[in-house]
Amino acid sequence: MTEQNRPLDVVILAAGQGTRMKSSLPKVLHPVAGRPMVAWAVKTARDLGARNVVVVTGHGADRVEAALQGSGVVFARQEQQLGTGHAFIQGLDALDDHQGADVLVLYGDTPLLRPDTLAALLGDHRARGSAFTVLTGELADATGYGRIIRDEQGNVERIVEQKDATPLERTVREFNSGVYLMDARATDLAHRITNDNASGEYYLTDLLGLYKAEGAEVHAFKLTDPGEVMGANDRTGLAEAESIIRARITQEHMRAGVTIHMPETVYIEDTVQIGRDVTLEPGVILRGDTRIAEGVTVGPYSVITDSTLEGGVTIKAHSVLDGAVVGAGSDVGPFARLRPGTVLAGGVHIGNFVETKNARLAQGVKAGHLAYLGDVEIGEETNVGAGTIVANFDGVNKHRSTVGAGVFIGSNSTLIAPRVIGDAAFIAAGSAVHDDVPEGSMAVARGKQRTLEGWSRRYWGGLREKVQVKLPWLAGWLSRQD
Amino acid sequence: MTEQNRPLDVVILAAGQGTRMKSSLPKVLHPVAGRPMVAWAVKTARDLGARNVVVVTGHGADRVEAALQGSGVVFARQEQQLGTGHAFIQGLDALDDHQGADVLVLYGDTPLLRPDTLAALLGDHRARGSAFTVLTGELADATGYGRIIRDEQGNVERIVEQKDATPLERTVREFNSGVYLMDARATDLAHRITNDNASGEYYLTDLLGLYKAEGAEVHAFKLTDPGEVMGANDRTGLAEAESIIRARITQEHMRAGVTIHMPETVYIEDTVQIGRDVTLEPGVILRGDTRIAEGVTVGPYSVITDSTLEGGVTIKAHSVLDGAVVGAGSDVGPFARLRPGTVLAGGVHIGNFVETKNARLAQGVKAGHLAYLGDVEIGEETNVGAGTIVANFDGVNKHRSTVGAGVFIGSNSTLIAPRVIGDAAFIAAGSAVHDDVPEGSMAVARGKQRTLEGWSRRYWGGLREKVQVKLPWLAGWLSRQD
Amino acid sequence: MTEQNRPLDVVILAAGQGTRMKSSLPKVLHPVAGRPMVAWAVKTARDLGARNVVVVTGHGADRVEAALQGSGVVFARQEQQLGTGHAFIQGLDALDDHQGADVLVLYGDTPLLRPDTLAALLGDHRARGSAFTVLTGELADATGYGRIIRDEQGNVERIVEQKDATPLERTVREFNSGVYLMDARATDLAHRITNDNASGEYYLTDLLGLYKAEGAEVHAFKLTDPGEVMGANDRTGLAEAESIIRARITQEHMRAGVTIHMPETVYIEDTVQIGRDVTLEPGVILRGDTRIAEGVTVGPYSVITDSTLEGGVTIKAHSVLDGAVVGAGSDVGPFARLRPGTVLAGGVHIGNFVETKNARLAQGVKAGHLAYLGDVEIGEETNVGAGTIVANFDGVNKHRSTVGAGVFIGSNSTLIAPRVIGDAAFIAAGSAVHDDVPEGSMAVARGKQRTLEGWSRRYWGGLREKVQVKLPWLAGWLSRQD
Repeated sequence: MTEQNRPLDVVILAAGQGTRMKSSLPKVLHPVAGRPMVAWAVKTARDLGARNVVVVTGHGADRVEAALQGSGVVFARQEQQLGTGHAFIQGLDALDDHQGADVLVLYGDTPLLRPDTLAALLGDHRARGSAFTVLTGELADATGYGRIIRDEQGNVERIVEQKDATPLERTVREFNSGVYLMDARATDLAHRITNDNASGEYYLTDLLGLYKAEGAEVHAFKLTDPGEVMGANDRTGLAEAESIIRARITQEHMRAGVTIHMPETVYIEDTVQIGRDVTLEPGVILRGDTRIAEGVTVGPYSVITDSTLEGGVTIKAHSVLDGAVVGAGSDVGPFARLRPGTVLAGGVHIGNFVETKNARLAQGVKAGHLAYLGDVEIGEETNVGAGTIVANFDGVNKHRSTVGAGVFIGSNSTLIAPRVIGDAAFIAAGSAVHDDVPEGSMAVARGKQRTLEGWSRRYWGGLREKVQVKLPWLAGWLSRQD
Repeated sequence: MTEQNRPLDVVILAAGQGTRMKSSLPKVLHPVAGRPMVAWAVKTARDLGARNVVVVTGHGADRVEAALQGSGVVFARQEQQLGTGHAFIQGLDALDDHQGADVLVLYGDTPLLRPDTLAALLGDHRARGSAFTVLTGELADATGYGRIIRDEQGNVERIVEQKDATPLERTVREFNSGVYLMDARATDLAHRITNDNASGEYYLTDLLGLYKAEGAEVHAFKLTDPGEVMGANDRTGLAEAESIIRARITQEHMRAGVTIHMPETVYIEDTVQIGRDVTLEPGVILRGDTRIAEGVTVGPYSVITDSTLEGGVTIKAHSVLDGAVVGAGSDVGPFARLRPGTVLAGGVHIGNFVETKNARLAQGVKAGHLAYLGDVEIGEETNVGAGTIVANFDGVNKHRSTVGAGVFIGSNSTLIAPRVIGDAAFIAAGSAVHDDVPEGSMAVARGKQRTLEGWSRRYWGGLREKVQVKLPWLAGWLSRQD
Repeated sequence: MTEQNRPLDVVILAAGQGTRMKSSLPKVLHPVAGRPMVAWAVKTARDLGARNVVVVTGHGADRVEAALQGSGVVFARQEQQLGTGHAFIQGLDALDDHQGADVLVLYGDTPLLRPDTLAALLGDHRARGSAFTVLTGELADATGYGRIIRDEQGNVERIVEQKDATPLERTVREFNSGVYLMDARATDLAHRITNDNASGEYYLTDLLGLYKAEGAEVHAFKLTDPGEVMGANDRTGLAEAESIIRARITQEHMRAGVTIHMPETVYIEDTVQIGRDVTLEPGVILRGDTRIAEGVTVGPYSVITDSTLEGGVTIKAHSVLDGAVVGAGSDVGPFARLRPGTVLAGGVHIGNFVETKNARLAQGVKAGHLAYLGDVEIGEETNVGAGTIVANFDGVNKHRSTVGAGVFIGSNSTLIAPRVIGDAAFIAAGSAVHDDVPEGSMAVARGKQRTLEGWSRRYWGGLREKVQVKLPWLAGWLSRQD
């Protein structure tokens, strides 16, 4: 096996409590840009092509393990918090087969560390034939961090903690990120870490000295952006991390040909795919498995989750889509709500205050105003009048209806499910349709109009006092009737 | 009376015109983060435990006094604008009992000055046994401000105005904030201020010299953040002040365990209480007497005023709440509007395009779509169908209705108030309910359906030309009917 | 002709491809703050009082010319991309009458260059009697730009491109913006530019040398803000340019007396007029030909295009207006949608989930909830009940209706257009009005209520199993009926 082909195992330390979060949620489960922090570490490990990924859990272990269920990682429990060295050993011990692999240590609370950075670390490690490489960064003032102490030739000699550092050592600007990449000796050497120190903990940092003692090659790889290893320790840290990831994602889309107005107000998760010449207006939120094809416009303050927008679609302001498919050239909104199971074919028009759910609308369907279309299939060119409700619920069950093509549904109609409306049928405005309507038929299901002349004079006359205060025009009319 | 127990009187100078505001509203009434600027000064005085608070008004005095009505402050009118010294005297003279108190001068246009800062000033003043303490700050370039001139021992000697300063004095970076804390001699000494100067005004600044001339202890207390005393003089100044206060408030909530996504887009007034593990999405606005319990999520762009959200409530995107109570575990929105008098018990579901007003909904009520529930009480587990309207208005009066528990209201129904619907009643979809419905009954109040076969052929045939242009599917159907 | 009165011709170079935009839209058509970039250049030329404006097109010439149709500019096509000098000649040659004019060269991708800056350039050019003035700027590091080389007296000697500059010349911080102002010799001299250089292009920069060779006065005019000439080359550049223009516009409105909360979230196009003491809440978007009178409040996340808001209007949160006129003192929203042709007189109330289109509402009309008012005229004081739909569409045509003054339209009514409803008429809730209603009459067009006692027991009994799982209260009721 050549060095380049050595497998990579990743141990993610995720046992910490995170009291500064002030939360009942374990620290590493706090979400950043749509993903729990620990899941960012797992994703990073996967992006690097890791063979085994072990997550060492401790505080809130059950919840952390539940959150990562199905991600293919191995879990190791650190029952007692005896230090990072101890946590690392738990992780390694959980691996059945660790032979011959490089081992990378990552953390469950540093979502900003880029896969690209770690790929560069890995490349450098292997190119130098390093046995142990520590990821470092440089800060104008590294107070608080462990410092990298180098010898006169510039080789890494040791890491000194803040509290143990001499005044001179404290002036060192290169700090230890805690991220280490090492060869297969890690397992043996980690077991030699002792807790023979003031706090009685096993420190992972000691590994560097143990490798040095073996005469192994030890190197440092310096981050271009030291911010990548900053952990999120409280909610402001979460917000800052999210802001950086958010900016990375919007920048990337802009560089690829997406116009984003006021990008600092737009939120896009990294799972979202966006085509060229898409325009996103201010305040747009795009989440989950959302795919947006070329030439789409998404209006301001629209929130889109797990939805597919085909080419040339227009989503107008203040629309909320979740689990919907919108066919090419359709326009939706403003104030539209498309819920899961909505599938719009091409050229569909959905207007304001319209809700769809489990609804398949064929080519050219129009539902322009104030409607609820639930559990229904609608044929092409059908016009759904303002105020139409598909009454799909009987109190306990949902029923499915079918509306044909070329149907005209008059305003304020109710289709009482399960209903079948034939092609080219016509439903009179205001109808509560409780029988099926055959093809080409008209259904009227409303009361006949009666007009009572002179009625208003008596009605408003009875309310005359209030009318005089509130309705001057009507008071005048009333007085002219006397 | 020990020094620590001396009462504190506060004089707030709020007579200025603020021409740069370009407004018909007096300068000090311009709101910052939900409160007129002068009300921030009053709140600060109260937070400091002030005994008497005097507000000196001038420009727009009537409106300023009206805005502070009920706040327990005393007003003094400065009828002529003869300078800050003159204004101060008006303030002191308005106090019945000023014996033995320390006096603090504040301003109606510096909303950023923190109570904590003033508490530190007060502590320093009393610890040093100071007779007169001026609050100062330091700027890299203090051009425009009065400068603090100290003697060789570093003691405060005098304040020199920009226009009177020598070139050397202009290099001084310590500036006078105009905030002074002084002992009870203030009343006497203030009356000795003269207008014997180029502009013929009475300058409050002269007090320092008068105290010095008495041989009294005069000190300065330097601000950590000189920005706290920056006045808001135009609308950009208002926006900047609001931005700083807004950031302080969101930071504080984040530190206390609230997750805020894109906090720079979120607006929270300082009157709002928020529990741990609450999540606020981008663009959320929280105002007034709003209380949010643990574990609540507020969706993007929701605007919540004077409302109570109990534990675990979910408010979805684009909801507007005002004066509502939302019971534990309820979910609301998106596009919901809860108006004053709305009280939702636990586990209530309010969906999209639903409005409530003076509405009490019991445990488990569901109103999922397009409804108006005004002046109504609804019993537990009742299902309110899509498109339901409680018609509470007869043209001049509002009437109240009662709906029992376990009622099923079919879609597009209208309840014509005042109406009583008994428990477990069933209202057929599309009904206009104009009689009460007894318990366990079904009400149908809609037309019976008539179906006219073959009608569409004639109808669309009459519109054939337009159909051919606009509706190709229907045109095809029509041609097949011939 | 005096120098001050010399006409000004402007040549706008807009032929570039802009591959970094990654777009099918020509670079100069990408919009910034509501206007294609090239249209900003045209507007700037107009603001300067230009006599002739020539736009030199190349890539996507048809689309660029179409976009500027009606703007009064002359087009010149640069069929081959032979360099800026060549483009400039195409522009000059397109002018019929170029005699005696100064010529200014602008670019189609620098929307940040202010008319005021160019007016100052023009003033300086004429005051000095300059023949050729280059607009320059100064950067700490001007790498990449052509540098301005001056002689010992500080006179402009030549421009040296980055690639041709000596190490010493590369330290020069003054750069060439590419904007030149020159006298009428430009036409002759431009034709002397050669492509005798490494890349075989005609460089407009060479003009400076040609003027110098004529012994003409050549000067430089230095920008205060070098950012003004930064071109937008990709979508991030577009976003940055838009952000700067946006901030300029909001700042200007704030200085003029408009309160803007969280101005960094507010978007206002430069075509919008706003009166004093207007309040804009967070996230407001104002576009196009929108005019807002004194004292108006626009609520958060409202989007207003091409609309007029008269004095004292209140627009509540999440409203979308397009092509509407809102009369003095009216209030609209939240969640209102006013579409083109909406004209509201004074004191109109439009509430939530209400849509209007081609609708004229007289003084005092109220439409508070869930309504669609399309193609309708409504008289004063008419009350439009919740859920009212004007059914204006018959499948292919729209019809217009008229509703008188003082009419009461009951909730969930449908007016089937074309309909005429007389003054003071009363429409019973739930009516589908298919006949006209005379003045003072009541119309009822709904079914009569039938009440079936004991029905619920049978209905829910049939669903008993599901009821027991989902509806505990109802299950209890049902068991008590047995």
